[in-house]
Amino acid sequence: MFQQQLRIPGPTPIPERVAEAGRRPMINHRSAPFTRLLGEIIEGIQWAVESKNKVLIFPASGSGGLEAAIVNLLRPGEKALFCSCGAFGARWIQMARRYGVDVVELKIPLGQPVIPEDVQFVLEQDPEISTVYVTHNETSTGIMNPVADIARVVKQKQKLLVLDSVSAAGCVPMPTAPEADVVLSASQKGWMSPPGAAIAVVSAEAMQKAASSRLPRWYLDFSLMAQAQAKGETVTTPPISVLYAMHEALAMMREEGRDEIFLRHAAVAAMTQAGIEALGFALLAQPGYRSRTVTAVLHEGGKEALGQLRSQLMQKGVVVAGGQGELADKLFRIGHLGQVTPADIVSVLCSLEDVLAGGDGMGSGKGVAAARSALAAFTSSPSPTPTQHSRPSRKST
Amino acid sequence: MFQQQLRIPGPTPIPERVAEAGRRPMINHRSAPFTRLLGEIIEGIQWAVESKNKVLIFPASGSGGLEAAIVNLLRPGEKALFCSCGAFGARWIQMARRYGVDVVELKIPLGQPVIPEDVQFVLEQDPEISTVYVTHNETSTGIMNPVADIARVVKQKQKLLVLDSVSAAGCVPMPTAPEADVVLSASQKGWMSPPGAAIAVVSAEAMQKAASSRLPRWYLDFSLMAQAQAKGETVTTPPISVLYAMHEALAMMREEGRDEIFLRHAAVAAMTQAGIEALGFALLAQPGYRSRTVTAVLHEGGKEALGQLRSQLMQKGVVVAGGQGELADKLFRIGHLGQVTPADIVSVLCSLEDVLAGGDGMGSGKGVAAARSALAAFTSSPSPTPTQHSRPSRKST
Repeated sequence: MFQQQLRIPGPTPIPERVAEAGRRPMINHRSAPFTRLLGEIIEGIQWAVESKNKVLIFPASGSGGLEAAIVNLLRPGEKALFCSCGAFGARWIQMARRYGVDVVELKIPLGQPVIPEDVQFVLEQDPEISTVYVTHNETSTGIMNPVADIARVVKQKQKLLVLDSVSAAGCVPMPTAPEADVVLSASQKGWMSPPGAAIAVVSAEAMQKAASSRLPRWYLDFSLMAQAQAKGETVTTPPISVLYAMHEALAMMREEGRDEIFLRHAAVAAMTQAGIEALGFALLAQPGYRSRTVTAVLHEGGKEALGQLRSQLMQKGVVVAGGQGELADKLFRIGHLGQVTPADIVSVLCSLEDVLAGGDGMGSGKGVAAARSALAAFTSSPSPTPTQHSRPSRKST
Repeated sequence: MFQQQLRIPGPTPIPERVAEAGRRPMINHRSAPFTRLLGEIIEGIQWAVESKNKVLIFPASGSGGLEAAIVNLLRPGEKALFCSCGAFGARWIQMARRYGVDVVELKIPLGQPVIPEDVQFVLEQDPEISTVYVTHNETSTGIMNPVADIARVVKQKQKLLVLDSVSAAGCVPMPTAPEADVVLSASQKGWMSPPGAAIAVVSAEAMQKAASSRLPRWYLDFSLMAQAQAKGETVTTPPISVLYAMHEALAMMREEGRDEIFLRHAAVAAMTQAGIEALGFALLAQPGYRSRTVTAVLHEGGKEALGQLRSQLMQKGVVVAGGQGELADKLFRIGHLGQVTPADIVSVLCSLEDVLAGGDGMGSGKGVAAARSALAAFTSSPSPTPTQHSRPSRKST
C-alpha cells in the first residue's frame, strides 16, 4: 500500500514540521511557556482571519464550537435564523432545537447557496430574529456561501451573525467590513493540525450577549474561557499536542503569506473542478458558489459502484470522502484545503483517470490537462479572489 | 535547561513509543482503519477498568466528561448528591447548578475523604436523591476516596453512581462488584497520552436513563455517541492523534500487566509520601486515604517562598504543580501517575533535597532513604493493594 494522500475535507494531511512539533513533551498548562504558546496561537489566528476579535480555543471538535455558538448567544425560546444548505446546517438546527431555541429555518436545496437577498427577506418578514447562523462552507455539498455580502445584510439589520467557517477559515478571506460576530473553525481543517481544538473568534457584542444569555452551559462557556485566557490559561486541560501543532502550522502559514494561501486554495479548487468536469462528472454545487476547499462530485452509478471507485482510488493511495446523509450514495468529495498543492491535485486526477480507464495503464489525461489549463488561466489572473463573491442570478427550484 | 521531568497530576509524561504513534498520518475517521483503532481502544479501556460496560470517547478534556455525566443522567430540578472534597468536586457542583440540578452537597473538609457511612446517612435522610456523584481521586487535595465501599452503599440503595476517576482510572483498581454506573477519565492522566479525549464507561442502567433524561445537550450526548460507535464511528471528528497515542499506551499497559501497573502506582505513592515526610513536610491528605496518583504537600512559607521552591526545582528539571483555588499558595503537588517509576521518585526527592540544602551540593539523603525503605517494605508485601480500602475512624472536624 502506498502512503495515503488524504483528500477528504478533514482531517487534512499534517505537514512533517507540524507533526514533529505535535509530539514535543507535555508541559504544565498552568505555566509561562503555555501562556506564550496560547498567546502566539491566538495572534496567528487573528492574523489569518484578519480580525482583532477575541479568539477562544476549546478542547473540542468543530461541532463543539457550533454548539458553543448556540448556548452562549441565545436564551430559551429566542428566535434565531438558521440558513441551512446541507448536513452541517441541518446539524446546527438539530442542536438548537434540543436547547429550545425558536428556530427559523431558511432551507436551501442541496447544491445551492444561501444568498443575501433571501436572508434580507426573512429578516424583514420576521424582525424578532436576533441572530443569524450561516454555514460559510458547507462541506457536505461543496458550496461556499457569499458570506461577505450576507454579513452586510445581517449587520445592516443589526443582528448578530455566526459563521460556521470550520472548513473555510484560514483558507479563504473572511468578511472584514463588517465582520461576523462569531467565526468558528477547527484545528483539523485549514490549520493543518490534528483534530481536537475548536476555534471561536468572537466580537465584543457577542461576548456581551454571552454574559447575559441564559442557555445552560459550563464546558463551552465563552465568558469562563475568556476569563481564563485573560490570565494566559484555559478553563480545563487544553489539547496541548494539538496546540503545539497549530503553533507550528501558523508559523508555516505566516511564511507562505495570507494572500498566497488564499490564492493557492482558489487555484487548487479551480483545478479540481475543471479536471473533474473534463472527466465527465457533474458537480453538485452551483457555479459561482463552488467551494475553494472541497468539491462534491455527483456519481450516478449507485452505492456499489461508488464504493468500488473509492476503493480503487484508495489502492492508488488516494483517499476521498463519501457523501453524507441523504447524499451518502450519490457523491464523493475531494478535500483540497490546508496542506495541498497544484501537484497534489494533478496526482489525484491522474489516479482517477487511471481508475476510470480500467486501472492498469495511464488514463485519458483529460482531467490533468484541464486542471493545468485552469491553473495557467488562474495564475495569469490579476486578482487573488476571483468569482467568489460574484452573484449570478439564483436558479429557481 | 534539563529535559523536564513533568511531575504534575496531568498532563503526564508521554512515553517515546506513544509520542511516535501519536504523530502518525491522519486517516479518514469514517473508515475501516479508524473503526479498528476505536474498537481496540475501547477493549483496552474495558480491560484496564475491569468492566464490560459501554466505553464512550468524546473529543473533550476530563471536565467535558464531568459535564456529560450531569446532562445525560438528570432532568431539571432532579435531586442529586455531590460528594465534594476539593476543587474538582466544587467544579462539578458549579456545573450541575448551571443546569438547574437540585444539588445536595456533602462537603468534606479539605484533606479528608468521603466515607461510605456519610453517603449512606445522606441517602437515608433524603430518599429523593437519584444519583450520587463522587470524586474518586481529588487531584487538588491528594485524597483517594474509598470508592469500592461507597459503591456498595450507593448501589444497595439502588441509586446511580458516577465516579470522577479522571486521575485514577488505569492506575488503581476500580469498583467491580458492584461497579459504578459511570466512570469518567481522560487521556492525559494514567493513559500516558496527550490531553483531548474524555472517557466515559457507562452501565446499561445509566444508558437507559440517558435515553429519557431531559437536560439539553448534543455535543456530549451519550445516546448519539453510542449509536455512532455501534457503527464504528464517532458523532463528530475524533481527536485522532490522541487516539493513536492511547492505542499505543494501552499496548504498553497490557505488556506491563494490570496488577503490575496498580502495584507500581501504589509503590511510587508510598515512596513519595514517605520521602516527603522524611524531609519535614506535612501532607494534606488524611492517612489511609492518601492518593496513589498525586501527593499534596503542605507548605507554610507563603506564596513567595512556595514560588521560589517550585522555581528552584524547575531549574533542576523537576516540574511540580501548585495548589488550586483556596489552596493555591499553601501547597505543592507531585503527580505520580502514568509513566512513572520508583527511580523517577528518587530523582524528584533527590532534587528536592538539594534545593532544601541550598542548591549547589547534594541534599540530606533523608527523603531518598525513606523512599527506598518504603519501596523495600512495599515490595516485600504479599498484597498488591495494601491500605487503600481500609477504613480508619474518621477525624472529627
